[in-house]
Amino acid sequence: MKANIVTNEELLNHWQGHRTLTRKVIEAFPEKELFEYSIGGMRTFADLVKELLSIAVPGLEGIVNNTTEAHNHNLPLATKADLLNAWDEATPKINALFMQISEERFQEEFNLFGAYKFPVLHNILYFIDNEVHHRGQGYVYLRSLGIEPPFFWERS
Amino acid sequence: MKANIVTNEELLNHWQGHRTLTRKVIEAFPEKELFEYSIGGMRTFADLVKELLSIAVPGLEGIVNNTTEAHNHNLPLATKADLLNAWDEATPKINALFMQISEERFQEEFNLFGAYKFPVLHNILYFIDNEVHHRGQGYVYLRSLGIEPPFFWERS
Repeated sequence: MKANIVTNEELLNHWQGHRTLTRKVIEAFPEKELFEYSIGGMRTFADLVKELLSIAVPGLEGIVNNTTEAHNHNLPLATKADLLNAWDEATPKINALFMQISEERFQEEFNLFGAYKFPVLHNILYFIDNEVHHRGQGYVYLRSLGIEPPFFWERS
Repeated sequence: MKANIVTNEELLNHWQGHRTLTRKVIEAFPEKELFEYSIGGMRTFADLVKELLSIAVPGLEGIVNNTTEAHNHNLPLATKADLLNAWDEATPKINALFMQISEERFQEEFNLFGAYKFPVLHNILYFIDNEVHHRGQGYVYLRSLGIEPPFFWERS
């Protein structure tokens, strides 16, 4: 039987909990390795964080304002403090933008960044999944550097 | 304004899409490296997959049957074929168990495995997030072995 199991506020809180954990992972990296270290030819964790930043607020702005400009991962953030500041600036913007999306809108297709035409809900679930995916990669980078990552369940 | 944005069927389909991708990642590993390779003292990808298997069906069975036995990650699965068979056997069980959970039940607290007392919805979101997290780690293992992982958006 069909059941409504997640509200907008619950999904937003779930995402912000993940964002709190991702922030701890950024903090756990030494400054140099954050911007220089990677495994197997992958991107540095700083580059992965820039991708997350270039998706979250710009993606929600696109959805709310119905604009389909491409996103740009190449953000001018060159230090750990830059990344953390950008992360913290995004937090209230995400809250404000997310809550402007109506129940009907979550089910409507939207051509995100002019490239990803899916229901708005799927686009937002992708933002969250993509963050968990890349953060998991950051955990491996930290472990291979001999640094203990934060516990996966630390979301506050 | 409060909005209902995810139904039980949508969350189940979302999870099964992730499970399809995780299956592709298992397949991408060479037999030997699946069971022996890791980075930074972490578990092998086979051990991570056993954890996922020991959580999904047993966790849903605990929720549906209201039992709180501990889970056991140490499953007797010694080959890639064993893991893939167990994965495929879990798929219809997850579908059947998941759809037995009522709308009200998703909001109720449950002491999962006798250890994790949270609303049922949060426990199930944890199952999914944990899979995405560990699969992201598998991507790093594959990349460091020179193997191209499947695309993150391949869910069918």
